[in-house]
Amino acid sequence: MTRKKTVTPTTIAGHTVPNPGTGTLAMMRSAIQATMALGDLKAHLFTIPEKPDWIPYRTSYYKEDWGFCLTHTQLLAMNEGDYEVCIDASLEDGLLTYGECYLPGQSSDEIIISCHACHPSLANDNLSGLTVATFLAGILSQCDRYYSYRFLFIPGTIGAITWLAQNREAAGRVRHGLVLTCIGDSGGFHYKKSRRGNAEIDRAAAHVLKHQAEPFEILEFSPYGYDERQYCSPGFNLPVGCLMRRVWGTFPEYHTSADNLDFIRPAQLAGSLRLCATIVDVLENNRKYRNLNPFCEPQLGRRNLYRTTGGDAIGKEINARLWVLNLSDGEHSLLDIAERSGMPFSLICGAAEVLRQAGLLESV
Amino acid sequence: MTRKKTVTPTTIAGHTVPNPGTGTLAMMRSAIQATMALGDLKAHLFTIPEKPDWIPYRTSYYKEDWGFCLTHTQLLAMNEGDYEVCIDASLEDGLLTYGECYLPGQSSDEIIISCHACHPSLANDNLSGLTVATFLAGILSQCDRYYSYRFLFIPGTIGAITWLAQNREAAGRVRHGLVLTCIGDSGGFHYKKSRRGNAEIDRAAAHVLKHQAEPFEILEFSPYGYDERQYCSPGFNLPVGCLMRRVWGTFPEYHTSADNLDFIRPAQLAGSLRLCATIVDVLENNRKYRNLNPFCEPQLGRRNLYRTTGGDAIGKEINARLWVLNLSDGEHSLLDIAERSGMPFSLICGAAEVLRQAGLLESV
Amino acid sequence: MTRKKTVTPTTIAGHTVPNPGTGTLAMMRSAIQATMALGDLKAHLFTIPEKPDWIPYRTSYYKEDWGFCLTHTQLLAMNEGDYEVCIDASLEDGLLTYGECYLPGQSSDEIIISCHACHPSLANDNLSGLTVATFLAGILSQCDRYYSYRFLFIPGTIGAITWLAQNREAAGRVRHGLVLTCIGDSGGFHYKKSRRGNAEIDRAAAHVLKHQAEPFEILEFSPYGYDERQYCSPGFNLPVGCLMRRVWGTFPEYHTSADNLDFIRPAQLAGSLRLCATIVDVLENNRKYRNLNPFCEPQLGRRNLYRTTGGDAIGKEINARLWVLNLSDGEHSLLDIAERSGMPFSLICGAAEVLRQAGLLESV
Repeated sequence: MTRKKTVTPTTIAGHTVPNPGTGTLAMMRSAIQATMALGDLKAHLFTIPEKPDWIPYRTSYYKEDWGFCLTHTQLLAMNEGDYEVCIDASLEDGLLTYGECYLPGQSSDEIIISCHACHPSLANDNLSGLTVATFLAGILSQCDRYYSYRFLFIPGTIGAITWLAQNREAAGRVRHGLVLTCIGDSGGFHYKKSRRGNAEIDRAAAHVLKHQAEPFEILEFSPYGYDERQYCSPGFNLPVGCLMRRVWGTFPEYHTSADNLDFIRPAQLAGSLRLCATIVDVLENNRKYRNLNPFCEPQLGRRNLYRTTGGDAIGKEINARLWVLNLSDGEHSLLDIAERSGMPFSLICGAAEVLRQAGLLESV
Repeated sequence: MTRKKTVTPTTIAGHTVPNPGTGTLAMMRSAIQATMALGDLKAHLFTIPEKPDWIPYRTSYYKEDWGFCLTHTQLLAMNEGDYEVCIDASLEDGLLTYGECYLPGQSSDEIIISCHACHPSLANDNLSGLTVATFLAGILSQCDRYYSYRFLFIPGTIGAITWLAQNREAAGRVRHGLVLTCIGDSGGFHYKKSRRGNAEIDRAAAHVLKHQAEPFEILEFSPYGYDERQYCSPGFNLPVGCLMRRVWGTFPEYHTSADNLDFIRPAQLAGSLRLCATIVDVLENNRKYRNLNPFCEPQLGRRNLYRTTGGDAIGKEINARLWVLNLSDGEHSLLDIAERSGMPFSLICGAAEVLRQAGLLESV
Repeated sequence: MTRKKTVTPTTIAGHTVPNPGTGTLAMMRSAIQATMALGDLKAHLFTIPEKPDWIPYRTSYYKEDWGFCLTHTQLLAMNEGDYEVCIDASLEDGLLTYGECYLPGQSSDEIIISCHACHPSLANDNLSGLTVATFLAGILSQCDRYYSYRFLFIPGTIGAITWLAQNREAAGRVRHGLVLTCIGDSGGFHYKKSRRGNAEIDRAAAHVLKHQAEPFEILEFSPYGYDERQYCSPGFNLPVGCLMRRVWGTFPEYHTSADNLDFIRPAQLAGSLRLCATIVDVLENNRKYRNLNPFCEPQLGRRNLYRTTGGDAIGKEINARLWVLNLSDGEHSLLDIAERSGMPFSLICGAAEVLRQAGLLESV
């Protein structure tokens, strides 16, 4: 990811496809035109009594219903009497629109980065993922890429289902993937593993998190959450994890109007972007080498790859070279070596490059 | 285990078979008719000095010997002088009698429940296992059964050896088994794993214990104990564990007259029976399903299997459905899913049934 | 290892072979003949300011350089002025000399014991390994041996590389191995695992350490250290671990004149020797047996292998017999049984011998 080159042609597309179901999107709100007493109206009004100035975010899942979300303060200020109720909507077959950015790499094997774009006006649980994904695409568009990258900006659930239904072949080329969400708040990182549990993306994310400074937690896979639910459904079982800061449902601002631009921070978004780029860097550079001098250690000193005077312990760069030489039997990847040595991937990867240039390693 | 049906014919039998060895049972007590001084007699008197009102239970294993067990108080009250000693016994080839109750099921694959009936007058270390096994047989006789069940009421060691020697074919049909002993006292549960260590009975017992309220401990297999010693001998290596409350040898009443009816409690026997029935329920219902809609999540809402309005977290029933759908790839059993999700088997099993009825799962 | 027999012919040899590289040994010190001011000389003088009376041990690795090691007190006492500097050395193709002691056994499979003999005048980090290895060879020369043993007394790094380069065939016969170093100080034991991580030598060493009284620690393999670096290079990947007391680099006396005869203790050398002999004993006696009576327990009482009266718990000898009978299915080694039972190997091994003599086990 370090070498820049001429920018590869990038495909950015907005897709509008027929809804896979029958008017499912429009079903989320039904039309209503009526006059009704406050008492009757209240069954359709949603507030958060314990946070009287926040507006909740409520969804009717595929049931024909309607309602208004408002602050509890507003509700308390409403006088008895008749109210005119009007939602100008129609329930009919519609279209599903999503955005897609494809960056071709040397290989047609893909890494997908997926984020949802459907929660109205929520900042952490919507916008943060879009932001980090967009900037990550910007960075990657300027780099040499081994993998091809596909960024999906989709409505949650139905977007992932639609994309997977229409792109079975591309889905089969997915080697690694990340769902990004709730990634701009002040919390530490949470990485939720893929259904496979020990996929390379799971190991890469855990490794990178372990070697950075912020607090973090690794969560086991569960089938409830964001669009990893679809990517990890048993028919696909793609190696896709989910990267978050705070976990949905565990912070009071979740699914309320308080999940706004004040709730997310530029520095946190930047830290999340750095983390994503580092994970991608591991995936891009994780390969296996074969030590061309496997019988005993090659003489590093003669090749200017060792210290010249003994006494104290060797430095970490030399130690990394010894690890790479020792485990490069064609079976261990650089990530394997980083994990076993306890050293950061970047150090192991740098050592492999130095050794390769010295003619001591070959890629397998 | 929930659906009742017409009671299946049950075979209850008492078997009397020649002793496998030569008069081994009778060797446990030899005849004696003599007059001897107290000093000489004392070598044949067994007491517990630190518990002067308890009588110990002592056995001579296959060595021709004799003795009397009594309280230390009685021993102290015995005057010097000559005593007439009389045990009217004979050492000759005999017969071994044991009880067996066989409940046929849909399959000839068997679950055996084994308990010993040889410790004279001991309540926890003898009678408690017989009691729980008898009531469990009563419950199971009223239920539809996938497995066939064999309850063995046998003298310890020689009973199990005899049954195994005479029933090699039936032993080959044993898929799961439990030895029940010391299961009526006030202690928490102990489950000792089979020699295999990760047999389905081991996993089922551990799972059920984890999801009930009483304290418990899982013990690794060891070759000393009750009749699991024989079932788990290397030639058979049957998946048979041992369920106890207090562990033999760890409570002072063990192998004494204080292991009496006051030492065991009806409520504890009932709790043990419930636990056994729950373990059997897991074994009966543990099967694998295939999600018939494996590409992304099926729309549960349309099938009335989801909540209708979003906001808070989903309930445990819906979560269980998501787990079953996600892991039902024909490879994971319901117990696998219960273990991975951390949910009780009953919840997972109920979810699978609901999904099967909705046409979303098929049994494999 | 317990039965003595007529001493087997032992080969003790000193080998002198051409240096594998070009004059590498001589490169460690270059000749110098000059007169120079103290200021210029100081760049070639090595001391330890914080330990003013200790002399450091410094090495120039394969770079043509020269220098003198001295105490800091000596350095401070040197007056300004010109100094005559003289090292009478020559840099030319040379010879590498090492010692080897080979003890043939019933099998040509080998156990190698390797120690380095190159650190000038250091006691713990040189002499201690030589001492323990020499005494271990003395003990083994008096014993029946299943394995053949090869003791290597070699200069570090280049010695191991030379031996491996010239003995490819013998290297292929190495089944287990130990590098001995820093094994006479007052510290507890450290065993560093082989690259394989779960080789029989790794398991034997861990088992023996667990069942002795001194503090110890098991260290994972790393490619930096002593000659296990070479034995465990990927082309050889021999099952060779490293046994130490204090770990190199972690004690202040390391690579200084304070690592002298006062730093090591006879009792500690003796304890290390006992440990090595016990590890070798495990390797010599670790085999698999088959229970000839695998269907249920054989009657041990009739064979005088059980207690005669029940009551308290069985003794550890009987328990060991039950473990050996239960797990001797031709698949589990005695070390497997010792590990699973938590009992010391010697107890398990003794039980197996008793059972074998009773006709209950056969070797597989």
